[in-house]
Amino acid sequence: MKKISVGLVGVTGYTGMELTRLLENHSRFELVRVTSRAEAGKKLADIYPFLQGMRYGDIVITEPDPDDLAAACELVFLAVPHKTAMEIAAVLLERNTRVVDLSADFRLRDREVYEHWYKCQHTQPALLETAVYGLPELYEPAIRTATLIANPGCYPTSAILGLYPALKNAMVDTKGIVIDAKSGATGAGRKAAVGSLFCEVSDTFRAYGLPTHRHTPEIEQEIGAIAGEEMTISFNTHLLPINRGILSTIYTTLIKDMTLDDVHALYEEAYRTHPWVRVLPTGKLPETRFVRGTMFCDIGVVVDRRTNRLVILSAIDNVCRGASGQALANANLMCGIDVQEGLRLAPLMP
Amino acid sequence: MKKISVGLVGVTGYTGMELTRLLENHSRFELVRVTSRAEAGKKLADIYPFLQGMRYGDIVITEPDPDDLAAACELVFLAVPHKTAMEIAAVLLERNTRVVDLSADFRLRDREVYEHWYKCQHTQPALLETAVYGLPELYEPAIRTATLIANPGCYPTSAILGLYPALKNAMVDTKGIVIDAKSGATGAGRKAAVGSLFCEVSDTFRAYGLPTHRHTPEIEQEIGAIAGEEMTISFNTHLLPINRGILSTIYTTLIKDMTLDDVHALYEEAYRTHPWVRVLPTGKLPETRFVRGTMFCDIGVVVDRRTNRLVILSAIDNVCRGASGQALANANLMCGIDVQEGLRLAPLMP
Amino acid sequence: MKKISVGLVGVTGYTGMELTRLLENHSRFELVRVTSRAEAGKKLADIYPFLQGMRYGDIVITEPDPDDLAAACELVFLAVPHKTAMEIAAVLLERNTRVVDLSADFRLRDREVYEHWYKCQHTQPALLETAVYGLPELYEPAIRTATLIANPGCYPTSAILGLYPALKNAMVDTKGIVIDAKSGATGAGRKAAVGSLFCEVSDTFRAYGLPTHRHTPEIEQEIGAIAGEEMTISFNTHLLPINRGILSTIYTTLIKDMTLDDVHALYEEAYRTHPWVRVLPTGKLPETRFVRGTMFCDIGVVVDRRTNRLVILSAIDNVCRGASGQALANANLMCGIDVQEGLRLAPLMP
Amino acid sequence: MKKISVGLVGVTGYTGMELTRLLENHSRFELVRVTSRAEAGKKLADIYPFLQGMRYGDIVITEPDPDDLAAACELVFLAVPHKTAMEIAAVLLERNTRVVDLSADFRLRDREVYEHWYKCQHTQPALLETAVYGLPELYEPAIRTATLIANPGCYPTSAILGLYPALKNAMVDTKGIVIDAKSGATGAGRKAAVGSLFCEVSDTFRAYGLPTHRHTPEIEQEIGAIAGEEMTISFNTHLLPINRGILSTIYTTLIKDMTLDDVHALYEEAYRTHPWVRVLPTGKLPETRFVRGTMFCDIGVVVDRRTNRLVILSAIDNVCRGASGQALANANLMCGIDVQEGLRLAPLMP
Repeated sequence: MKKISVGLVGVTGYTGMELTRLLENHSRFELVRVTSRAEAGKKLADIYPFLQGMRYGDIVITEPDPDDLAAACELVFLAVPHKTAMEIAAVLLERNTRVVDLSADFRLRDREVYEHWYKCQHTQPALLETAVYGLPELYEPAIRTATLIANPGCYPTSAILGLYPALKNAMVDTKGIVIDAKSGATGAGRKAAVGSLFCEVSDTFRAYGLPTHRHTPEIEQEIGAIAGEEMTISFNTHLLPINRGILSTIYTTLIKDMTLDDVHALYEEAYRTHPWVRVLPTGKLPETRFVRGTMFCDIGVVVDRRTNRLVILSAIDNVCRGASGQALANANLMCGIDVQEGLRLAPLMP
Repeated sequence: MKKISVGLVGVTGYTGMELTRLLENHSRFELVRVTSRAEAGKKLADIYPFLQGMRYGDIVITEPDPDDLAAACELVFLAVPHKTAMEIAAVLLERNTRVVDLSADFRLRDREVYEHWYKCQHTQPALLETAVYGLPELYEPAIRTATLIANPGCYPTSAILGLYPALKNAMVDTKGIVIDAKSGATGAGRKAAVGSLFCEVSDTFRAYGLPTHRHTPEIEQEIGAIAGEEMTISFNTHLLPINRGILSTIYTTLIKDMTLDDVHALYEEAYRTHPWVRVLPTGKLPETRFVRGTMFCDIGVVVDRRTNRLVILSAIDNVCRGASGQALANANLMCGIDVQEGLRLAPLMP
Repeated sequence: MKKISVGLVGVTGYTGMELTRLLENHSRFELVRVTSRAEAGKKLADIYPFLQGMRYGDIVITEPDPDDLAAACELVFLAVPHKTAMEIAAVLLERNTRVVDLSADFRLRDREVYEHWYKCQHTQPALLETAVYGLPELYEPAIRTATLIANPGCYPTSAILGLYPALKNAMVDTKGIVIDAKSGATGAGRKAAVGSLFCEVSDTFRAYGLPTHRHTPEIEQEIGAIAGEEMTISFNTHLLPINRGILSTIYTTLIKDMTLDDVHALYEEAYRTHPWVRVLPTGKLPETRFVRGTMFCDIGVVVDRRTNRLVILSAIDNVCRGASGQALANANLMCGIDVQEGLRLAPLMP
Repeated sequence: MKKISVGLVGVTGYTGMELTRLLENHSRFELVRVTSRAEAGKKLADIYPFLQGMRYGDIVITEPDPDDLAAACELVFLAVPHKTAMEIAAVLLERNTRVVDLSADFRLRDREVYEHWYKCQHTQPALLETAVYGLPELYEPAIRTATLIANPGCYPTSAILGLYPALKNAMVDTKGIVIDAKSGATGAGRKAAVGSLFCEVSDTFRAYGLPTHRHTPEIEQEIGAIAGEEMTISFNTHLLPINRGILSTIYTTLIKDMTLDDVHALYEEAYRTHPWVRVLPTGKLPETRFVRGTMFCDIGVVVDRRTNRLVILSAIDNVCRGASGQALANANLMCGIDVQEGLRLAPLMP
């Protein structure tokens, strides 16, 4: 079958790195451009020795040039910082190249909310209406016809999938929800910074960014849409001394008289046709390693009778499901390819 | 000055190991007995090569014999499982040997609560009235005259110290409190178990024991006493891929109109005379490594105006402050020694 | 195409676990039996939640019964301890079921050497002549027609592939070779043992088993065959605080006047037709993460003019290339399947 | 007793950080200056929250000014990069302030060797004769009267102490020695660099710098002095995913007919009066955790009859014994203080 040419803007970060890994075994996409200002001129295997001898090891990194990208690619993944992404996206879309944007630039439908939380001006507000929020379990039909995908944030992916059945079925109070989220260090990016050094992250644990993490409005936007009302949550993030993985522990209050089995049955029902979301049997709890390197979102539910709380645990791989794998799933859908293509991945255990 | 002879029952676990480390540099206590059924007859350095050439490396491990311990020791640390501890404690106390019990056997004042949560009979109910809960910041006067100390659990130490100023000053709603706690793997003990293997704990993260962790009633007992009313909390535990350290993220709701500075000032005030509790400046959050190997409890406070929540972060070293170091502090107080003796420890960084 | 039914004896260890991961995406093999004495009756996903919802999650574990295995399977993987393996292998082979044995039972061609190093009797000496040493780069033709594969040890795989070009081309002195090998903790197995606990392995490093590691005679047998003379090496092992990966640093003395480029060219030549062995460019050194989860063996060469030493660095994933992946490659060859089937794996980075 | 005022130049690296930890509990030294160009004006606890509430938490960091340092301090620790150190040292010494230099600037007695390996000019060659190599077990008398200490490198400390008894007693061939050394990530320093990020160091293992590590001539200088002849060794370094610790595996060839017990007895004899060097019983091997946070150098010896090799394993904490702790020991000796002052540290286990 004819290959579809794709490009990757921003290959030196962890999401760019992950996309090269995933595209190695994709049967329909052909990676024809990878860009990086800092590394232009080198081969991919020069900066990523793990790709030596593989399909894309010899591809030469170029400077990011929207004209060249638009000419060469039917679809482009943007793995660059917010603000940079919106400018490139606009040029590419104008030239009819589809875009999957891994940054935050098109996730928030309300321009003011974006400008408030990201402290910068949105220069492409018209595209906010074009963009589709790329969470396949919720928006698959719209994704199929989209030209611009706002790829969800890592934390929001785990939080929204965790809360969806509870809110959709009005099991829980929409007020007072607390999300205590913990992420591996790839979430901090691949920038040289003292705070991200091995000796500053290993053998320790800390919270960070409280109470103003930028994924807060993204989560509120999406769960508010599910609940059908405006929602305000307490969202709190921590840094784990592991590479990959997010575990969100979500505290809600039951407003219906439900047993654990009742809750569990509705969770299973909600994801019956979505094989990437695995609702664990009652009594089992998710672990980040069970989803390592994959698209799975594992969910466990706990009912605490003493406090009348429904505690939801949701685990994903922040780099794969929370970023690059999800981007690839969206690209699959946009191009009419089986959503699972290139993503039938078994967890690396241990 | 005359040395005070002490004994250690149960040397092969992590709390026993930590006590040997701490006693190496104690100027007043002389360790004269260390016991272990499994390792009796060996020298301490045989099982703990890190002690070779040190003060206690050549001490010979004996079988635990209450008569011998009572004859040889003025004070005994019990670092054995609950249920075993209560029996030994009773014999030792009868013979006027003071006891610091690191197990849970005497922490819960209400026998029924103990029997409900620990699923076993309490055979020494009379001692429940004798025992003093060994949290020095709250109970120092009683500890000084105690003969039996119920050494606090690791999670409760971090949770109670974190909540104390908020409850004492009635800042927060006593209902709906959530404690999301994360502990290093020493908390799981030194028993050979597949679930505690390096390859099952490293590079992963998980919750466990929800919603029935046995430290729940201990926390409720103590914070209820501070608040002056019965309290029910949601207490939830997670396993970190690190050796030492607990970070508790505590979610409360403010019931007074207070700024972050107001809250912070009352926290500083509460611990002004307690140097082991360090209230961090506003804007700084605790990390487990900042307290590694020490008695410090580092506390950070965050006020989230959007949700009206006071989020309290409390970090300790679970092995030192959360167990053996606190046991030593209690022993110091019981024996009229400076509470800091042997515990002037600078954090090992990194 | 018709599926080939295979069985797996011993699913609870890390090599068994890895085989389940690899077989998930194999297009020709159908896993019809998995056995474990301890876990018989459970579904695979009960003990391995990471397999929930996947191809083999619902397969029921059975007791190991050679009759049943022989009847149901065309080929069986033995992931059980040595000594146990030889007995099962004999029965299966008698019934014309092919065997890939991951234990050490058939690796040493000389029965006496086996009995000396493994301190036990070999009860199936006749099979020692039948067995083929399953290192595809060296023995592919014999593997294709074999009925019994002695799957190489993890350390030997890295050491033999590292030394092969140097010895084949008589670059180095066959005397005085030192192999300083370091392995991740999966190499210690999945048995509950205090020495393998997270808190005993993390944040530390140690040598072990010096100077009598059982992989020594296996390495000597194979490199002696390459060199055409009996060889004696110094082989020394260390435990890394990582899950997967072996790095062998191999010290040899050059006996020819060769530059680094000369050496490198012969290494590249030796593996030109073997894509799993990647000879890195001069100046680059392998890392265990570059081969994580894959069949790659990455080799770096260093010439030290001051000491006239050729230092060879060889990295593999001990669980995949060093055990289960190699077993699958051998099974592919035995069944006339493309050796890469199920093994086109991109390294998980980071 | 009167305090001795000391200064610390370069507080932001790991060796500077470690000195602040060690000086917290030193009874005779009073830290009166800490300097850093980048952090001048802040309090120490601002950059190191682990020091909050401790003795030196409130000391204000200043710009490094040799005049001010000389006026304020009787002794100064230089924890700055080589080349910078030599210039500051010269000024301080001229003003009669003693110097312990943790850089490499004065370790190599031969100026040409320095300039060859460090690729820069030595501007203070006269001081090379003044400087004393600060390894207490070998040079204690000279250290006591020194004004300038060249504090040994971390790898050399472990290698020299490991080889000393073997060479002093002429047990082994001085030719062909191989040192395979592995270090924790603090050895790479605290500079922001992608290669030192958590996600680039954790869960992996690699060699680096082969075959030209700058500690090579330092080791050769010192072991050559012990052996009484010029020596050339193969020295090879690896990066461990741990914070602290070096394990050197040293391969030598026995030239005398000695049993393991013979070797062991001479090792014990060599260090009988040096309590920081612990020769482990035969059959026991060192681990980096057994020396964590301390001055110990643990040594294990193995005799391999098959290859006639004596394998020596030597473990230290690279930050304490390999840098700052050793600097403090040297300062103690220079000032007539008990060498153990401030350094009676029990290993942090686990």
